[in-house]
Amino acid sequence: MSHDKAKRGIPSKNDQFNEWYPFIVEAADLVDKRYPIKGMDVWRPYGWKAMKLIDALTHIEMENTGHEEVNFPLLIPENLLEKENALVARLKRAREEDVDPDSLRMDEEEAGFKKEVYWVKHAGQNELDIPMFLRPTSETAMYTMFPLWIRSHKDLPLKIYQMVNTFRYETKQTRSFIRVREIHFFEAHTAHIDEDDATQQIKEDLEIVDRLMHELCLPVIKAKRPVWDTFPGAWYTIGIDAIMPNGRTLQVASCHHYRDQWAKAFDISYENIDAEQSYVHQTTYGMSERLLGAIVGMHGDDSGLIMPPSIAPIQVVLCPMIRKNATADTISVANEIASTLRKSGLRVKVDNRDLHPGQKYYDWEIKGVPLRLDIGPRDIEQGTAFAAKRTGGKEPIPLSNIANDCLRLLQQVSEELRERAHQHMEHVIQPLPQISKVEGEWTFEGEILDGHIYELAFDGSDAHAEIIERLGGLSFLGDATEPYENSRPCHMTGNPTTRRVLLSKSY
Amino acid sequence: MSHDKAKRGIPSKNDQFNEWYPFIVEAADLVDKRYPIKGMDVWRPYGWKAMKLIDALTHIEMENTGHEEVNFPLLIPENLLEKENALVARLKRAREEDVDPDSLRMDEEEAGFKKEVYWVKHAGQNELDIPMFLRPTSETAMYTMFPLWIRSHKDLPLKIYQMVNTFRYETKQTRSFIRVREIHFFEAHTAHIDEDDATQQIKEDLEIVDRLMHELCLPVIKAKRPVWDTFPGAWYTIGIDAIMPNGRTLQVASCHHYRDQWAKAFDISYENIDAEQSYVHQTTYGMSERLLGAIVGMHGDDSGLIMPPSIAPIQVVLCPMIRKNATADTISVANEIASTLRKSGLRVKVDNRDLHPGQKYYDWEIKGVPLRLDIGPRDIEQGTAFAAKRTGGKEPIPLSNIANDCLRLLQQVSEELRERAHQHMEHVIQPLPQISKVEGEWTFEGEILDGHIYELAFDGSDAHAEIIERLGGLSFLGDATEPYENSRPCHMTGNPTTRRVLLSKSY
Repeated sequence: MSHDKAKRGIPSKNDQFNEWYPFIVEAADLVDKRYPIKGMDVWRPYGWKAMKLIDALTHIEMENTGHEEVNFPLLIPENLLEKENALVARLKRAREEDVDPDSLRMDEEEAGFKKEVYWVKHAGQNELDIPMFLRPTSETAMYTMFPLWIRSHKDLPLKIYQMVNTFRYETKQTRSFIRVREIHFFEAHTAHIDEDDATQQIKEDLEIVDRLMHELCLPVIKAKRPVWDTFPGAWYTIGIDAIMPNGRTLQVASCHHYRDQWAKAFDISYENIDAEQSYVHQTTYGMSERLLGAIVGMHGDDSGLIMPPSIAPIQVVLCPMIRKNATADTISVANEIASTLRKSGLRVKVDNRDLHPGQKYYDWEIKGVPLRLDIGPRDIEQGTAFAAKRTGGKEPIPLSNIANDCLRLLQQVSEELRERAHQHMEHVIQPLPQISKVEGEWTFEGEILDGHIYELAFDGSDAHAEIIERLGGLSFLGDATEPYENSRPCHMTGNPTTRRVLLSKSY
Repeated sequence: MSHDKAKRGIPSKNDQFNEWYPFIVEAADLVDKRYPIKGMDVWRPYGWKAMKLIDALTHIEMENTGHEEVNFPLLIPENLLEKENALVARLKRAREEDVDPDSLRMDEEEAGFKKEVYWVKHAGQNELDIPMFLRPTSETAMYTMFPLWIRSHKDLPLKIYQMVNTFRYETKQTRSFIRVREIHFFEAHTAHIDEDDATQQIKEDLEIVDRLMHELCLPVIKAKRPVWDTFPGAWYTIGIDAIMPNGRTLQVASCHHYRDQWAKAFDISYENIDAEQSYVHQTTYGMSERLLGAIVGMHGDDSGLIMPPSIAPIQVVLCPMIRKNATADTISVANEIASTLRKSGLRVKVDNRDLHPGQKYYDWEIKGVPLRLDIGPRDIEQGTAFAAKRTGGKEPIPLSNIANDCLRLLQQVSEELRERAHQHMEHVIQPLPQISKVEGEWTFEGEILDGHIYELAFDGSDAHAEIIERLGGLSFLGDATEPYENSRPCHMTGNPTTRRVLLSKSY
């Protein structure tokens, strides 16, 4: 195996997270970064399987909530982007001037998108009449078709999604799963009869997030982004952030309420019950391969990955001891156990390589297999296998009822991962020190420590927010979807508020 | 629904196949062709579901044959294409000059690929240093990584596959699924210790083809392509062709034996058992959304699609009769039946729309749902549902054992589709009329009819082949993988041969 060498000497996760992360994604065979385009990794079988298992959880959620899967073309003609640009420019101007966007004309002003996309301007030996770009997301592609699909209130709600490759021309440093140029992406797009129905959709999305994150054992912060960090074209954005071991937040998902802003730009209207034309209200919900990045970062340790059982490509690895002249045939017993476990729906691998057990343990620990069963001649005599949880803890389990015991131990691994991640979150989130003016200068009354997320009661202005951000070297994640139970004085104004605002350094 | 109007007036399949096909792919909600780029359709939920069910069959085959799924970047740097071009140019020259390709230098001559790809030369506002192209297939991308993954004979065979979007800059007329510019594509790539092991892989591929085509109820022709129609870079190509109702062949899959030709171009070698470096021998096996095109074309009729049950997004549709003042609650009975059928693993839909039954039948016939169950108050009284197979035939079936009866009827639909397709194939393939020289001119002794595929015993030269092709207005599909049992005289030379060669007009 080409990675044997690389597998020696894993960096310390706590002390050298910035070395540990890139090392482990390759050493565990998730991706290969040696493809000759920076920021475009090759997904190796083990990494792709984990990603597809995450996708499978998402598919189930989509099925259960009545979303239908579609697949749109990758390429989008430039003129559709111009429509989007006009919308974004108008909304931006409306915000700056604090007026109703409807009162403003659509200018074909240049927004930021053009700077972030890959362009296809040539095909074969021809220059194309209309340049096209690789989708960064699919709003413009989809909303070009929506007017053809939505005619009457009977066509609503329209709930579709797709899982596709998207592209961003990243100029910042790339990092596997976290900041890449080809992104494995999930996007749900919905259209509704009115604002309320769209708001209900956002609620449903956040419930889906909760269920998915439970499966992935990832606690997250859900926060309504401040206006300046709202997705262009959105009325509001809710960002869903995982917390990495170094205390930095990683946005793994987001939901956007568009009201009828896109509908007006793309002319998506329907005949309502009173036979009048109305614009639809829209939402989107996006997630990406960053989910896998968060799993790698949050759950791993100094021995490698720890895969949450729900998405572990291998949930149980069986290591039969291979000794010459052994009477009991450990391999055939291992194969029998594997067959029993597979019948219970478990993903199982038998490692019958003729290697020293220590080498095998090392390999499966680095890959984060949540449960290992060692099977030696003495175990067989005693009618047991020796189970080792990747989160720690060993015990013999009887062969007679092995599937149930494996399921129980995997459940324990999930709970331990959840508990660890939750404790990390509790530890990382701290109240923001008080701020006061000392000799005309705003100053924190305590220290802002690296590796922390800060929370505060806040009801101030954008200018107040800017002061806090600058002073702390942190960014507003926004208003947590779970506010304080009782009102508290705002950090800046002293006015009572239940708004619970979070600040972090983010990826 | 936006397609209500379109659903009226289906063209006749036999008389107007060229109108029927594009009409039906949209009327059955497989794709929407109104996306503003020609040859790039939007996959609608029903079409995408069917495609993913085809993919699911392929995934199972890959799993059972020890292939692992990967995912490579879409973009490929131009310099890798130049490596491929050099290889192809050298092989072409070797063929023309009838010499060993190894005796020829790799020239950086321009091959055909550059004319067929979409180019990314710009990102954001920058021109890229190295232009990139959208993969037409992934040989160059993958074989750049293979030397990093293959070191020793222990790493072989390497068997990987992916399902991805690929791109061809088609200048010919586009047709949904059959000739498109963004292609939903399956590609398996393998590397082996030697030629024999690679040959065994081609055998395995063809067995997979047989099992898949059985599930899709599609008889196919497997033929070793003539040299001039071999995939560039391949030693030989086996094309797998479905037969469309108009007698034209549609290549739905292909397998290529590369020998060590690519390995030499990309320096893919390994240390063999004797500790010497050897080049690997490689194969590829590709399939695409054309499979769905073949299903649409082959199985449909004047009422719409007929979906083979193995990939039907809806296998059984339940139509409860909705009558006012009816005592029996047909909808709740239908829901109960649906629940029973789902427990048996069937894909089921209850159509409880308040529409005239004729309208419902029309909708599900056009979508090709293989089995419909009508449930009226009288049926419930009698403890039955009234089953209608999409291939024809109706019968009451008892509710008490309904899942088994549905499975039996679906099995019948599959067998009927296979039988029909097989009969069509038998009818379409005809012996090629004799050829003789009359007054110095080659002439057929019988008529070459439209809508037929011709077979002949052939052991002649390329020049002979050209005479036949020109005279008949047909193309060589190549040597059928099933030759004649007993030798026959070659059509041109009269020499005895078992080579069974097929000629067709192809898509």
